[in-house]
Amino acid sequence: MRKELKKTIILQGTEQGTERKEDTIVNEFHLAIFVNKQLIATLTCSPAKLDYLTTGFLFSEGLINGKEDINGLIIDQHEGVAKVKTEQGKNKGEAQTVRRLIISGGGKSCFTEPYYNQSRQGSNSQIKISITEIFALMDEFIQLSKIFQDTGGVHSAALCDKNGILLFSEDIGRHNAIDKIFGECILKGIKTNERVILTSGRVSSEIVHKVLKGNVPLLISKSAPTDMGIQLAEEFGITLIGFARGRRMNIYSQGWRVVNAA
Amino acid sequence: MRKELKKTIILQGTEQGTERKEDTIVNEFHLAIFVNKQLIATLTCSPAKLDYLTTGFLFSEGLINGKEDINGLIIDQHEGVAKVKTEQGKNKGEAQTVRRLIISGGGKSCFTEPYYNQSRQGSNSQIKISITEIFALMDEFIQLSKIFQDTGGVHSAALCDKNGILLFSEDIGRHNAIDKIFGECILKGIKTNERVILTSGRVSSEIVHKVLKGNVPLLISKSAPTDMGIQLAEEFGITLIGFARGRRMNIYSQGWRVVNAA
Repeated sequence: MRKELKKTIILQGTEQGTERKEDTIVNEFHLAIFVNKQLIATLTCSPAKLDYLTTGFLFSEGLINGKEDINGLIIDQHEGVAKVKTEQGKNKGEAQTVRRLIISGGGKSCFTEPYYNQSRQGSNSQIKISITEIFALMDEFIQLSKIFQDTGGVHSAALCDKNGILLFSEDIGRHNAIDKIFGECILKGIKTNERVILTSGRVSSEIVHKVLKGNVPLLISKSAPTDMGIQLAEEFGITLIGFARGRRMNIYSQGWRVVNAA
Repeated sequence: MRKELKKTIILQGTEQGTERKEDTIVNEFHLAIFVNKQLIATLTCSPAKLDYLTTGFLFSEGLINGKEDINGLIIDQHEGVAKVKTEQGKNKGEAQTVRRLIISGGGKSCFTEPYYNQSRQGSNSQIKISITEIFALMDEFIQLSKIFQDTGGVHSAALCDKNGILLFSEDIGRHNAIDKIFGECILKGIKTNERVILTSGRVSSEIVHKVLKGNVPLLISKSAPTDMGIQLAEEFGITLIGFARGRRMNIYSQGWRVVNAA
């Protein structure tokens, strides 16, 4: 069985009473990330692809800009520890970063400072995608979400081009699932520009921020965005689509990339 | 209109093409929490009940144990700042706490240290609840979730007794929604033992930890738990119920509190 999952015995309750059943649940794992021997964060996550998670997390947090900034990466799955060595001087801002790291939980921010302070270009990609192509991507996305189908306990994320899904991940945290995608791209040298990120989760500003950092022009979610998520996407040239489920979607920003024709 | 909400114009995409529509979205707000002039955390939240959120957050994080530890609480909604004064010496662990505060996101942990290290009693409440009562609570819970019905963009939490919902909150973060409940209880002197917490969100160990801290014996979620959430609940005498939707529920721990008869 996959290490993200576990079988357990539960009581199922209905109007007819309770009954013992076998159920599948998700495993929760705590990963402490050390950069140059300093504890940066402890993530609650699913116990798979921890190298991708670590790399994507450090990228999202601005502690690395790419693979070249990593001099060493050791995952100790037994101890729940990731040890990262970075170029000396590349992460001088660590202590400050830790102060900016924010408490957990669906929809809590990583940064106290406005994103605008961070010099960052918006996306100028001219890529377009059709409504039919989006429906096809979401169909494939749902089919790949095996752990979600078994447990209902994880979020999914994917990197795609218009023709299909290239990378896929699931994690108990919606942020982690996306970080795992970007981490895999960084470690394998996979390009992210001119591509699409899919997420099952709600889109707050920090999710848009990750996509912006990865220079991805299209972000499509099964769920709702926030006003700040939309504003950030609009301002930095990202096409943000939400509630892409069934045969519908809401296009919240930079709608010119979505074309009607197939 | 409620300050948690905003109207906006979107493009709705279907197989027939795109069409302009009015839509309601949730507002995202960033609250920087200072305790004795030290920045403790910045929460991404919905902009309501910020005094409850601040109080509940500090309680969850162990920085206060009750109202008596708060010497002052000022919310500056315009600046997005909460300023808390606590008893001198009560929050000596702040710097350390900040180090333990963890990065954002659905299902990420607040603590690097095991909960077991924190001396904490389990629940020895003898309260029982029937399956019919649980269905009735969930029906009321869903009816109260107005912002969710309008936007799909928030989580809900509630404090109940067996007869109905006593306190209700909605927030873009599932952790925040629960913190707002406990914060309101603390500020208004409302008892939480012998009562029930409802949540729309997934139940990882940090959610169980909050409920344990508030000494609530019953935790009922519309969504999935993790293995660690279940383990913590079982060990500390909390009855954990998940997937309480439709006319079903899964009972994961301490099932003796759930009785068949009405």
